Amino acid sequence: MRTALCDAFGIDYPIFAFTPSEHVAAAVSRAGGLGVLGCVRFNDAEELDKALTWMDDNTDGKPYGVDVVMPMKIPTEGTSTDLSSYIPEDHKKWVDETLLKLGVPPLPEGEGREGVLGWLHSMARSHVDVALQHRPVLIANALGTPPVDVIEQCHAAGLKVAALAGAPKHAVSHVANGVDIIVAQGYEAGGHTGEIASMVLTPDIVDAVGQDVPVLGAGGIGSGRQIAASLALGAQGVWTGSIWLGTEEYRNLAGNQGWETAFLRATSSDTVRTRIYTGKPARLLKTKWTEAWADEDAPAPLPMPLQNLLVADAHNRINASGDPDVISMPVGQIVGRMNEVRPVAEVMADLVAEFEATVKKLDGIAGI
Amino acid sequence: MRTALCDAFGIDYPIFAFTPSEHVAAAVSRAGGLGVLGCVRFNDAEELDKALTWMDDNTDGKPYGVDVVMPMKIPTEGTSTDLSSYIPEDHKKWVDETLLKLGVPPLPEGEGREGVLGWLHSMARSHVDVALQHRPVLIANALGTPPVDVIEQCHAAGLKVAALAGAPKHAVSHVANGVDIIVAQGYEAGGHTGEIASMVLTPDIVDAVGQDVPVLGAGGIGSGRQIAASLALGAQGVWTGSIWLGTEEYRNLAGNQGWETAFLRATSSDTVRTRIYTGKPARLLKTKWTEAWADEDAPAPLPMPLQNLLVADAHNRINASGDPDVISMPVGQIVGRMNEVRPVAEVMADLVAEFEATVKKLDGIAGI
Repeated sequence: MRTALCDAFGIDYPIFAFTPSEHVAAAVSRAGGLGVLGCVRFNDAEELDKALTWMDDNTDGKPYGVDVVMPMKIPTEGTSTDLSSYIPEDHKKWVDETLLKLGVPPLPEGEGREGVLGWLHSMARSHVDVALQHRPVLIANALGTPPVDVIEQCHAAGLKVAALAGAPKHAVSHVANGVDIIVAQGYEAGGHTGEIASMVLTPDIVDAVGQDVPVLGAGGIGSGRQIAASLALGAQGVWTGSIWLGTEEYRNLAGNQGWETAFLRATSSDTVRTRIYTGKPARLLKTKWTEAWADEDAPAPLPMPLQNLLVADAHNRINASGDPDVISMPVGQIVGRMNEVRPVAEVMADLVAEFEATVKKLDGIAGI
Repeated sequence: MRTALCDAFGIDYPIFAFTPSEHVAAAVSRAGGLGVLGCVRFNDAEELDKALTWMDDNTDGKPYGVDVVMPMKIPTEGTSTDLSSYIPEDHKKWVDETLLKLGVPPLPEGEGREGVLGWLHSMARSHVDVALQHRPVLIANALGTPPVDVIEQCHAAGLKVAALAGAPKHAVSHVANGVDIIVAQGYEAGGHTGEIASMVLTPDIVDAVGQDVPVLGAGGIGSGRQIAASLALGAQGVWTGSIWLGTEEYRNLAGNQGWETAFLRATSSDTVRTRIYTGKPARLLKTKWTEAWADEDAPAPLPMPLQNLLVADAHNRINASGDPDVISMPVGQIVGRMNEVRPVAEVMADLVAEFEATVKKLDGIAGI
C-alpha cells in the first residue's frame, strides 16, 4: 500500500492515526503509519513538551505528527475564570441537576482539573511553539484553516500542514491559505464533523483541490475494506481516529474500564452528532448524557469555547465514575466494529492485509 | 464488472437503477444494468399496467424490476377523503399560507391529481398484482420487509425480492422473513434513509447477513469511483437513484425545466434529511420549501401516510410552477455531481469505464 504520501513523509503505509495518546501515536509510527498526537487535552505547555520528548525517544526515529485545534475566527479568549462569567447560571444548574439524576458522584475533594483550554486560540499557538522544539513532520488543524502566520511558521521549519474539511469549499479555502494536505472529514467521523458523508465528500474534495493536493479520507475507516474504498474515491491516504481507542496502548490514557465497556458493546447506530461537547457539531457515543441534552427541558448548547468549559467538570466527574451508560466520548460510527482490544501493531497489520485482499477481489470483479 | 448478481439476473453489470420513469428504467436495462421502476406515483392500477406493457415492449427482452412501498406495519388505511379528516386544520392552513409566502400560484381550475396513495399498503399490494402480470425479475420494497405472503407470492412467480435497510438489524430481519437481496441504504441517499453512512453501513450489513445474501450498496453512488468503493466494502452490486434524474430520458416525466435548473446548480451541501415528504425521514433537495418547514413556526410533520396527503396538493402546485427555488425533490448528496443532462447509455458507459480505471489505480497502490 504505497502512495506519494509514503515518500513525502518517509512512512510505509499512508495510514494517519489521530489519537490523544502518545503511546498509541508512537506505536502507529513504529508500525509504519503516521501517529498524530492530539494536543487539545494539554492545558500545560510543559505537559505537552514531556509527551513529545517521550515520543522522540519511543518512535525508533520514525516520523510523527501533532494535531492542534485552532479556529481561524478567534472565539472569546481569556482564562477559564474570566470565561466562566459568560456561562448562564441556568445552564450550570441544569448540568448539576442532570448529573444528580444520572447518579454521577462529585469528585473527591481536591481532585479534578481545569476545563480544557486547548480549544482556545492562544493555547493552540503555544502547542505549535512547543511542537516545533521536537521533530514532528506534520501539524494538523482539527478545526478549519490555521492562521497564515502559523502555516508559514510550520513551513519555515520544514513541516507539512494539514487541515480538516467537511465541505469542498472549505478545502479550497484551506489550500488558498497554504495548507498542504486536506483531511476530508465525512459525516460518519467521530468528533467535529459536517453533513456530507465520505462516499460523496472524498471525491468532491479530491476534484475540488486538484491532483497536486493530497487528500486523506476520514470518517468510517476501521478496516482494510474501508481503506480500499477511500483510496478508490481518490484519497491518497486515510485519517483514522476512533479505532485506536480500542488498543492496548490506549489503556495508558483511558484510566478506567468504563470506556472499554462502552465502546465494545456499541453498534454503528449508537452515536449522535451534537453541539454539547464543544459548541460545534461533533459526533459522540450515544449515552444517557447525550440523551439528557436531547430532552425538551435541556438548554441549548453554548458557543465554543464556553460549552466545553460548562461541561468540563461534568466530564471529569463522569469519567471518574466510569459508568459506561453515561460516558462522554467522541467516537465515529465505526465504533460498531470496535469489538475487542488489541495491540496497535496487530490492528495495523490487519488493515494492510485486508486492503490487499480487497484489491485482489476487485481485480476479479473487473476481470483484470 | 461482473459479480454473481450478473448471472442471477442475466445482466451485464451489477448496476441497479431505481427510477420513477419507465423511459429511464428501460434505457438502463437496454444498456446492461437493471432498471427498476418505482411504482409509488401510480394511483391507478391501469396506469401502472400501461407503463409495464410499454417496458415489456421497449427493453429488447432485457430484464427489469419494480419497486413498491410497503411498510410491514400497516399504517392508517382508507381513501384520501377518509384520511383527510385526520389532518389538523392548522397544518392545512400553515401549508396554504406558506405557499402564498413563497409565491406558488394555485393550480388552474380542474387540474391537479389526488394525493399519492402509493404509500398505502392496499395500493402497494395492487402494484405487486399488476407487476406479476408482466415480466419483472425483481420486486423491491423501499420501506422495510414486505409482508411474508407477498414475498411468497413473488417467489412462486420466480421473482427475487429485495428490501432496503438502513441498519444491520433491519437487514437481518428482512432475511429472516425471506428477502433475497438487501439494499444497504446509506445516510447520503435520497429519499427514505437512516443515520448510518455507506462507508460504515455497507460492510456492517454484508457481515450481518453473511456471504450467501447479496447486498447492494446504495447512497452516494454516481461515478465509477463510488461503485469501486461500494464493491470494496463488500457489496455485490450498487443501487443508484438520484443520478438518473439527470438524464435525457427522464425529461419525459419531469415536465418542466425547474427540476433541471434546481439539481444542475445544487452542491453536495444542498440536501436535507426531513420528515416533511412522507412522515418518515427522507433526504430532499434543500429549497425554500424545506427551509420553511424548518422554521420555528412550522408545525411538526404528521405520521405516514398523512404527511404526504397533507403536502400532495402543495407538491402539485410547486411542480406546476416550476420554480427551482421552491421545488420539492427527493435526491441524495450525489446531487452535487449532477451537472449536465446526458443520455442513460452514456452515463452507464462512464460508470463502467471509471470503475475499471479505478481498479487499475488501486492495483498500482497495492503493488499488484
